[in-house]
Amino acid sequence: MKIALAQLNYHIGNFSKNKRKIIQKIQHAEKAGADLVVFAELAISGYPPRDFLEFDDFIKKCNSAIEEIAGHCTTIAAIIGTPVFNPNSKGKPLYNTAAFLSDGKVQKHFYKTLLPNYDIFDEYRYFEPNRIYEVLSFKGFNIALNICEDLWNVQENPLYTVNPMDEVIGQNPDFIINIAASPFNYHQIDIRTEVLRKNAKKYNLPLFYVNHVGAQTELLFDGGSLVMDRKGKILNEMACFEEDFQIYDLDNVIKGKVIRGVTNHRPVIAMIHDALVMGIRNYFEKLGFSKAILGLSGGIDSAVTAALAAEALGNNNVYNVLLPSRFSSSHSVDDAIRLSENLNMPYDIIEIEKPFSAFEKTLKPFFKNLPFDVTEENLQARIRGVILMALSNKFGYILLNTSNKSEAAVGYGTLYGDMNGGLSVLGDVYKTRVFELARYINRHSEAIPENIITKPPSAELRPGQKDTDSLPDYESLDEILYQYIEKRQGPKEIIEMGFDEKLVRRILKMVNTNEYKRYQTPPILRVSSKAFGMGRRMPIVARYLS
Amino acid sequence: MKIALAQLNYHIGNFSKNKRKIIQKIQHAEKAGADLVVFAELAISGYPPRDFLEFDDFIKKCNSAIEEIAGHCTTIAAIIGTPVFNPNSKGKPLYNTAAFLSDGKVQKHFYKTLLPNYDIFDEYRYFEPNRIYEVLSFKGFNIALNICEDLWNVQENPLYTVNPMDEVIGQNPDFIINIAASPFNYHQIDIRTEVLRKNAKKYNLPLFYVNHVGAQTELLFDGGSLVMDRKGKILNEMACFEEDFQIYDLDNVIKGKVIRGVTNHRPVIAMIHDALVMGIRNYFEKLGFSKAILGLSGGIDSAVTAALAAEALGNNNVYNVLLPSRFSSSHSVDDAIRLSENLNMPYDIIEIEKPFSAFEKTLKPFFKNLPFDVTEENLQARIRGVILMALSNKFGYILLNTSNKSEAAVGYGTLYGDMNGGLSVLGDVYKTRVFELARYINRHSEAIPENIITKPPSAELRPGQKDTDSLPDYESLDEILYQYIEKRQGPKEIIEMGFDEKLVRRILKMVNTNEYKRYQTPPILRVSSKAFGMGRRMPIVARYLS
Repeated sequence: MKIALAQLNYHIGNFSKNKRKIIQKIQHAEKAGADLVVFAELAISGYPPRDFLEFDDFIKKCNSAIEEIAGHCTTIAAIIGTPVFNPNSKGKPLYNTAAFLSDGKVQKHFYKTLLPNYDIFDEYRYFEPNRIYEVLSFKGFNIALNICEDLWNVQENPLYTVNPMDEVIGQNPDFIINIAASPFNYHQIDIRTEVLRKNAKKYNLPLFYVNHVGAQTELLFDGGSLVMDRKGKILNEMACFEEDFQIYDLDNVIKGKVIRGVTNHRPVIAMIHDALVMGIRNYFEKLGFSKAILGLSGGIDSAVTAALAAEALGNNNVYNVLLPSRFSSSHSVDDAIRLSENLNMPYDIIEIEKPFSAFEKTLKPFFKNLPFDVTEENLQARIRGVILMALSNKFGYILLNTSNKSEAAVGYGTLYGDMNGGLSVLGDVYKTRVFELARYINRHSEAIPENIITKPPSAELRPGQKDTDSLPDYESLDEILYQYIEKRQGPKEIIEMGFDEKLVRRILKMVNTNEYKRYQTPPILRVSSKAFGMGRRMPIVARYLS
Repeated sequence: MKIALAQLNYHIGNFSKNKRKIIQKIQHAEKAGADLVVFAELAISGYPPRDFLEFDDFIKKCNSAIEEIAGHCTTIAAIIGTPVFNPNSKGKPLYNTAAFLSDGKVQKHFYKTLLPNYDIFDEYRYFEPNRIYEVLSFKGFNIALNICEDLWNVQENPLYTVNPMDEVIGQNPDFIINIAASPFNYHQIDIRTEVLRKNAKKYNLPLFYVNHVGAQTELLFDGGSLVMDRKGKILNEMACFEEDFQIYDLDNVIKGKVIRGVTNHRPVIAMIHDALVMGIRNYFEKLGFSKAILGLSGGIDSAVTAALAAEALGNNNVYNVLLPSRFSSSHSVDDAIRLSENLNMPYDIIEIEKPFSAFEKTLKPFFKNLPFDVTEENLQARIRGVILMALSNKFGYILLNTSNKSEAAVGYGTLYGDMNGGLSVLGDVYKTRVFELARYINRHSEAIPENIITKPPSAELRPGQKDTDSLPDYESLDEILYQYIEKRQGPKEIIEMGFDEKLVRRILKMVNTNEYKRYQTPPILRVSSKAFGMGRRMPIVARYLS
């Protein structure tokens, strides 16, 4: 038997496009002599469809797309993820389903048992968990067919009280097929491989795994679909960050024969880089835009953002705007120009002095002679925001936000100013890692001028300002933030790691009191296990560590 | 036996304050001869604590607060909602718990079975459902003690496959105590009363119900705690939108004796009004702010927002800024002044011409002689946003956002302009209802000038502009939006109601393509069953009805 795995980039709610892609691969697999072709979890709708799932109209559209696709499965069978209505009168209205199509029809539905409902996942919001366990019989084989999280309950303190593979193992399955929607983070490939390996070994079964690829707003699906033998050895890996399609001979898989292919275990910084590039590219493509605008300050964050955007969209499609004020240093402008020239990106210099002094004049009678303070700093950032948005409106650019995770965490940024943008590229990348990214971008030749990487970071919103005036050094800051945000450690645990108590309390307080700012920031490309956005839900009006 | 119900306004994560409030009520109840005092669901942490629940430090703080409170329960017993660690090795790490305190100790934990995970609720994100059903025995009575949603599985198509009251009824309970965190929407009081009544009647038991009161950012808890007899007759209702405390004689409740009190069934518009006022007031109080700023355009949205803020914070604490441009009509300024004077609110007039022409000059070389378009309209809105934020930064005001739900829905507003603010007051109130609110505010005397209510709505961003130039009339718009947003009807169903197909498709498309704008808007005070924000989760990069 030959089994094809189709790792595709879907567009949420774009049924005609998703359907066309799927049918194309079915036809392709058929021609290549495959018996079965497997698509990812909720492939037909794209993942995550979120509250579109609450619309009966949306589910009906999924159903009819699946029906139409089934019509193409005459000499070949297919497995496709789709939401279906719960046929029972009790429980949530939907099941997250793997539909088995053959002989021109939907033959059977296999429901998902374990519904992830943590971090960015909300599946229990929509779906009833499966309670019936059956293998899929196909061409003399018993297939343990399940969906993503169904294989993930293998930790020491399992999150769920049931394990679907335990329920089905008595029916003597010959192998496992798992269809998934497992988003990238820079630890995820290792964790995922280990989870799949545990299953293959525990149940002594070969395993076919099909994931999504492509970006869905903030969520980055890396693909990395794979085939393992019953010992947990990887027989073949599919590409990361791009579509892929492979046909496997089941005999060879059962024999544990390695099939030549890629390896996805690359340095963390390379994976983050590729993930971000894909995130930018797909965001623009799927929205039907081609050109980005951004404010190039001469600092490292906007430089790295511009370089990533240039790779994603083409150099010519990234419009850099330098917006010097009376406090900008000359090296900032020079460095920004050099970067634009290095990468052949169009740029303009727009001085903000005129609007700044107009605002000063307009506001003077109302400011009661109070001294220059954070107000005037924010004013500059907001004027830049207004200019960038005006150009974006006039010419149809999407503004890229250039804030990094460290400053987003502590609220070091101006709401409606430098926090503007349609998409935050670096909002899940700590400052220390932004430097790593810059070095990685420069691995072959200088894209980002050395001076941008080596000079001390500054917002340049008042004379002689440096980030370290108001923030701890980034090494300590990032490590404390990581412990608090990614690892959910409390102040006691972090202090016990050897950090200064006052510093820890100060940083945690900054994080918690700035929740209101992050509430209004653009979607952030997620590359870590805990990004700001949908996966981290914090009260705004609260008093905890604040 | 005497049972006290304490309906309190908690502050999320503010353990010292919540603890103090609770202990005070325990002492008060004790002095008044009560045997048992009952507090709401997750009272100790405030509701919803969201991802604070993922911090062990937070749960430990809840535990120690409860321990301390237990020390005060020597001659009286108490029931208090708190999160506790799941003592088992399998399942989610926490239980949503009703702790029973007596004899100076935590005696027993009763876990919540049904975990709401729809709309604004995320309880399955944190909590394992209960599977052990026991009554609480106290002073010779068997009490069916449960938590909020545990009583809500009484619909025709139940959302859950288990019903905790069915599991416990065999143990012959004498009455029900339900501790809740049930937020307001303008239908909720009726729905809630009906759900509680169904339970009282179905199980033939009297019922004590304790809810939260007060605002937690966007969520407005109306209180309305109550006592019912076994026939579902309300014996007593507690106040809406304020704290309350009552002691009930169990004999009288069992006998079905009505206790004189308030009635909370008031006109919808009065409830929305009171909810919004509480929402503004609590947002400021709990953040430690006292003064609001807002842009007063002369239109109805900002007028109603100002009037509500004046009631919430005191007239003197609402600073109105009139920001006329070259396109503003004279009546706008006059109307805004008259409103400020009617309500004795401080105001200033700040012309935006200087920064507007400075931006025009600055941008001219880059605009390539393209004509005046939405860019220049947005520019005006953004200049106003910059001025309001500058004043807010300089003097410590919180900027109130004045957008209504109709314009938020169709994206009729400028991101980083009039969509700015710390809190959106009317973002869950459709335009037609904003007019109703204005009439209600004027019920005793003119606060909002008649001309503001009667003139045709206009953004005044270009000469002679009216809302109806780019939007359908608000009557049709709001009805279609209501069907789509609150009722989750698809295009087919809405068209079948008699609306023009082209109009329906155009409006739904506007809603879906403007998801990116709403992603970056301030938290919105929730008064309907489906508000924009945490309760409505939509993909941004998608193509569905768009």
